Amino acid sequence: MLVELVTTGSELLLGEITNYNSAYLSKQLNELGYFVVYHTTVGDNPQRMKDVLKTALSRADLVITTGGLGPTQGDMTKIIGAELMNRPLIYDQAIADSVQAWVTAHHGTVTMTENQKRQAMIPEGAAIFDNEAGTAPGVAMQGGGKNLVHLPGPPSEMRWMYENRLKPWLLKTFGSQGSIRSLYIKIYDMGEAFIEERLMDLVKDQSNPTLAMYARPGFVEVRLTARADSEEQAEALLEPLEEEVRSRLNDQIVSFNDETMADVLGREVRQAGYIVSAAESCTGGLIGSLITDIPGASDYFRGSAGTYCNEMKEKLLGVSHETLERYTAVSAETAAEMADGSRRLYGSDIAVSTTGIAGPGGGTEEQPVGLVYTGVSGPWGTLVHRDVYHGGRAEIKRRAAVRAIYYVVRYLVNHKNK
Amino acid sequence: MLVELVTTGSELLLGEITNYNSAYLSKQLNELGYFVVYHTTVGDNPQRMKDVLKTALSRADLVITTGGLGPTQGDMTKIIGAELMNRPLIYDQAIADSVQAWVTAHHGTVTMTENQKRQAMIPEGAAIFDNEAGTAPGVAMQGGGKNLVHLPGPPSEMRWMYENRLKPWLLKTFGSQGSIRSLYIKIYDMGEAFIEERLMDLVKDQSNPTLAMYARPGFVEVRLTARADSEEQAEALLEPLEEEVRSRLNDQIVSFNDETMADVLGREVRQAGYIVSAAESCTGGLIGSLITDIPGASDYFRGSAGTYCNEMKEKLLGVSHETLERYTAVSAETAAEMADGSRRLYGSDIAVSTTGIAGPGGGTEEQPVGLVYTGVSGPWGTLVHRDVYHGGRAEIKRRAAVRAIYYVVRYLVNHKNK
Repeated sequence: MLVELVTTGSELLLGEITNYNSAYLSKQLNELGYFVVYHTTVGDNPQRMKDVLKTALSRADLVITTGGLGPTQGDMTKIIGAELMNRPLIYDQAIADSVQAWVTAHHGTVTMTENQKRQAMIPEGAAIFDNEAGTAPGVAMQGGGKNLVHLPGPPSEMRWMYENRLKPWLLKTFGSQGSIRSLYIKIYDMGEAFIEERLMDLVKDQSNPTLAMYARPGFVEVRLTARADSEEQAEALLEPLEEEVRSRLNDQIVSFNDETMADVLGREVRQAGYIVSAAESCTGGLIGSLITDIPGASDYFRGSAGTYCNEMKEKLLGVSHETLERYTAVSAETAAEMADGSRRLYGSDIAVSTTGIAGPGGGTEEQPVGLVYTGVSGPWGTLVHRDVYHGGRAEIKRRAAVRAIYYVVRYLVNHKNK
Repeated sequence: MLVELVTTGSELLLGEITNYNSAYLSKQLNELGYFVVYHTTVGDNPQRMKDVLKTALSRADLVITTGGLGPTQGDMTKIIGAELMNRPLIYDQAIADSVQAWVTAHHGTVTMTENQKRQAMIPEGAAIFDNEAGTAPGVAMQGGGKNLVHLPGPPSEMRWMYENRLKPWLLKTFGSQGSIRSLYIKIYDMGEAFIEERLMDLVKDQSNPTLAMYARPGFVEVRLTARADSEEQAEALLEPLEEEVRSRLNDQIVSFNDETMADVLGREVRQAGYIVSAAESCTGGLIGSLITDIPGASDYFRGSAGTYCNEMKEKLLGVSHETLERYTAVSAETAAEMADGSRRLYGSDIAVSTTGIAGPGGGTEEQPVGLVYTGVSGPWGTLVHRDVYHGGRAEIKRRAAVRAIYYVVRYLVNHKNK
């Protein structure tokens, strides 16, 4: 079943709020096996909204709107929807009573305004979704092979209504739409184009299962998705593709689904019984922050020494004055001594360091903006990596921090496998 | 001029990513006086994409797409756009050279893949937006009174391309579209409901200028907007409201527009000639990272000592063993000694520290998840603040880090005004 989501509200078109409703509903509906094929956003303009709903009903089987069900003049979605589905609006006493009860509970004993009463106007014959998270009821209309559903716009109400009203209604009305299984593989050390070259023939003529890839800050994500009538069938479809992809990426350190590289680091160092620390110049503390995003990181992480000036690199980490003079702070030599110094300072088994030029200023021809040296110091010696990252200052920091954590994992895994 | 934004990519329809591009572009374009009237999202399906672009070109004057310009098979936006605007695609050697240069700079001396070469195919006669934040160039085509623009999809590239390429092109091609002036005021120390109480009567019956407020992580944002034919008129409309709001918030430390609290900190400490440092336990390095997001932070920031275990709090910061034993690591006493210790260690004038329970585990009745002590040590003594933040682990860390920076600014401002 093809679905179009129509979000309404001028605040979306003004860029004042981000459209989280479409992402939420898409994820939920895809998990139920529905195909969401369009998202459309339109403002509080009756003619444009009518055109958008007409187009949506012509190209999708199920159209779900969010927003425009409230008590104000701008709230017109239900009126236009009822007109398009040829339903007169009828005053519903039960809904009026429940709106009154909600108003009384939340604002004391007050009379409903004329506008609030509008919320009790319901398209004839519609399924009514009463709203326990707010006042605006939702409705669903069926006719001519098309289905039009109106949900309220505030995300918390919309989510409550989906979970408690629309989802049960969909399951009852349309039965199972099959099952979807997805696997996400995050790859940290290859560009999109290179990954595609390695997986190219799997991408061609894809239908089911499908494979797609997305550039993320610091990694590329490959998504495998299979669709089938049952969970078991979807699983069976996905498995061979998953194995093929895994085997083609066998020398790559990856993370799966919601896992970050900091999760992988945690798993690897826990397994090895290692203690980790960091020393950060250009990343400013972001490596420490990413590592400590993982619950329980205190079991293996002792901290990150932020040394944002040469003096502290000497004092805290014992980087030699001569190294800083001779090679500058942004050099392989300094990165190596910083990592070694962090290991000594924290008494850790493995330490990672960064020093570089986050920009936007400070770049030269030999040391361009984005240049970052990453040191990894551990039981098998000290390695330094040189990278040039692109993007703005915050993005360069982020890419460098994610990659630094990856380099620690690679250091561990490479030596584990020997 | 009516604008439709078309975002492409199946990951949006699957709910895997949130549509930040539409919000960003809407905000920017509205500020230039353009009317964004539709957002549409469509997946990597050639027929549907073609239909969507056709509809968009029929109802808007300017259609801007994001996504689908990359080197993979799924990247088809430019091909379909060129077809609809009746332009053959032509291989552009200059673009090919710049893609090659980018590939070489970021991946070493390698040959472009066939797919990367596809990025150099340009619709005949199109304006070319070369992309210094990535490899995919953008294009703009004009014909039949319609304008079709293709921008890359990754948000950082798209933003760079808008700011440096599309915006100048729009101003040059279409001239002024009227003027909108907006002012964003970020308030760090009051809840939304309290702010609304203080500004309530300004919110009522608003038409032009308007006032709106949004809850953000760690602060509340108030937006004032005025629309007029000229910049001067818009300015004149906005000014009295701005003055009224500022006077009602006069005891609050706020930041304006894109400014973060770390920007305000930088301004204040530069002015005073102070050197800053930090000491972080529960925030793991995030304070250091936020402070170093500001270009030039190395002028006043020496670093943040990450001490994620008691031992390092003693060793690095000189927190006394007795304090840790008697009051635990999550206490006002520890926070104070950490801040004092960071000042000593880095030889700074002002230091900030955090120690708390980021969760999800580790909370008790006296020390619930979200409890954070923030210490500020400086020339006027050491202050400690106690807060309990809500949200998940990453959100608690973020709120605590933003608030910690705010506390340093408050410390400075309070003493400056005495």
